[in-house]
Amino acid sequence: MLLDELLKELEFKLDFPFTTKSLERIIIALNTTNDFWEIVDYSDEPLPLVAEVLKLLEKKELLKISSNIKLTKKGKNTFAALGSFSWKNIKCQTCQGRTISIRHYKKLLDKFADIQKDRPSPKIEYDQGYITPESLFAKIAFADAKGDLRNKNILILGDDDLLSIALGLTKLPFNITVLEIDSRLIDFISTTSAKYNLSIEVHQKDLSEPLQKELLNRFDTFFTDPSETIAAFNAFIGRGVSSLKKNGGSGYFGLTHREASLYKWSKLQHFILEMNAVITDIIYNFQDYVNWGYEKDMRAFQLSPIKTIPQNNWYRSCLYRIETLPRFKGFNLPLLNHDLFNDSESSTT
Amino acid sequence: MLLDELLKELEFKLDFPFTTKSLERIIIALNTTNDFWEIVDYSDEPLPLVAEVLKLLEKKELLKISSNIKLTKKGKNTFAALGSFSWKNIKCQTCQGRTISIRHYKKLLDKFADIQKDRPSPKIEYDQGYITPESLFAKIAFADAKGDLRNKNILILGDDDLLSIALGLTKLPFNITVLEIDSRLIDFISTTSAKYNLSIEVHQKDLSEPLQKELLNRFDTFFTDPSETIAAFNAFIGRGVSSLKKNGGSGYFGLTHREASLYKWSKLQHFILEMNAVITDIIYNFQDYVNWGYEKDMRAFQLSPIKTIPQNNWYRSCLYRIETLPRFKGFNLPLLNHDLFNDSESSTT
Repeated sequence: MLLDELLKELEFKLDFPFTTKSLERIIIALNTTNDFWEIVDYSDEPLPLVAEVLKLLEKKELLKISSNIKLTKKGKNTFAALGSFSWKNIKCQTCQGRTISIRHYKKLLDKFADIQKDRPSPKIEYDQGYITPESLFAKIAFADAKGDLRNKNILILGDDDLLSIALGLTKLPFNITVLEIDSRLIDFISTTSAKYNLSIEVHQKDLSEPLQKELLNRFDTFFTDPSETIAAFNAFIGRGVSSLKKNGGSGYFGLTHREASLYKWSKLQHFILEMNAVITDIIYNFQDYVNWGYEKDMRAFQLSPIKTIPQNNWYRSCLYRIETLPRFKGFNLPLLNHDLFNDSESSTT
Repeated sequence: MLLDELLKELEFKLDFPFTTKSLERIIIALNTTNDFWEIVDYSDEPLPLVAEVLKLLEKKELLKISSNIKLTKKGKNTFAALGSFSWKNIKCQTCQGRTISIRHYKKLLDKFADIQKDRPSPKIEYDQGYITPESLFAKIAFADAKGDLRNKNILILGDDDLLSIALGLTKLPFNITVLEIDSRLIDFISTTSAKYNLSIEVHQKDLSEPLQKELLNRFDTFFTDPSETIAAFNAFIGRGVSSLKKNGGSGYFGLTHREASLYKWSKLQHFILEMNAVITDIIYNFQDYVNWGYEKDMRAFQLSPIKTIPQNNWYRSCLYRIETLPRFKGFNLPLLNHDLFNDSESSTT
């Protein structure tokens, strides 16, 4: 079968495993749209794989790449049975597929939208990029519904999303602590916290180094959004779990398909279970990212067969919630000489 | 702290581990409602644990159980800081928290609702109980959006939900095969399939026995809804994975909190990863169950401190989607002398 042949030709070009189902998804995306960034978005496959598949299909005259990306007549006939994605049309338009309503946060959302106007722009150096205010408040509403916010001690590991400010505005948590490497964000959060009386505690911190003792076993809930490398999962999620109170707690983080194959997803899931935590929720594309401005400098742009920057939001991540079981154990070793931000599946760095 | 003390007193009464977070959730539910079935529903804790916690709180004069279940003044003061659940109010009312819209299935939903009027009633013998038609079509829409239905070979392991009929009506799959133990359901599905020309293939099958060779490595997508025991996870999900084509596929199943602690959730997640599959989605309370009629005969009713049958739907399950990775391996050994339906966390059996 054709897909099996394609798989064999591709296997040696990429150093992570994937299946014909990955190829199918990319082809179904090609049946759905002609825009490169949307193909990546809809297919839910790592961008470097998408780029390789497109090259191969072009070589086989199943695809034509010019000002856009289109299956040839031969391609269309070959792949007609796979159909197109209905996702675009059936995602709930009220909650945007996030399961919860943020109506009651309307006022705070407006206030936040106003406050964040002067936020520091994302820096490629730290693989930054922030989620939309709607995604942010949906995450807050979701965590509140799970009983993870009210009168709780909250830790945020890396906060380019400015979650601390949004959480502070809700007045729900008992206290909020932020660990952040970027002094621009530290200044912005501290200044805003003082101005609006949000009492957010901010520490400068490089998370490749272990958490200081005072932060261990102190929090009820942590939030983080690691880069999609194993080192970053250790540094952000592993330390997050280390920060939880001995009698347990919960953690939230995003994981994208754009820069993480399902093989990497499974590695992360192994890591979570090894810590004796359990995954309670994975909500598809809960977090939409605002296009971050350094598109032309990233590997994704080099890999794209067409050199146009994305017109719409295309980068999304799924929301994970995890919870600890008795005798859980986080990860708090130093990470020496690890690149937190890059591996063969990354592309926005 | 009080919760730690409660935990110590409870640990020896139940043979599965849990944390103070479990107790918190039950107390937050008590801050939210006075109805036993709603307390179980909102807390997302196994019913036997909820029942034990209520007994203990009553003993400590923190709770009063009469015609309903209420925190005493002392209880209210003690637990005020935990707050109440906002879930009830913030669940998206358009999609009921299921992430997708089923508007375009309106006609088929009506047709299905009509067809299923004469369905066999659920049997306690097989731990049956079926999801609402809305949940059923939402699952279909979701699976279609993932590219798992169109022109695919579908296997359904156990079909008291009548998913095969609903799927048949959509005309999306290439073929649909059902394995079912209950001859009443086999008759109903076969007759309906013939009447509406749905070409569903139905086999009588006890899933404690291995799948026959012809069914191995043949399907693209499987659906199942196991009882919440490890043996049933093996029999239903493990065999489902065995049925998938060698180049991979996906599987869907529900998992409830009502009869499965997070400890059992983690055991299931270990099992999935051991097969070299990965969890791609877990959507909270995606499936609502219709109250099944044998409420008074189930263990849950014995455990309930108030002998009223549930007035509203209270039994829900979260929707899991899994996908296989290269070199996955299902489970297809015989299960001798295993009770598929009962363990210490079950209560609707």
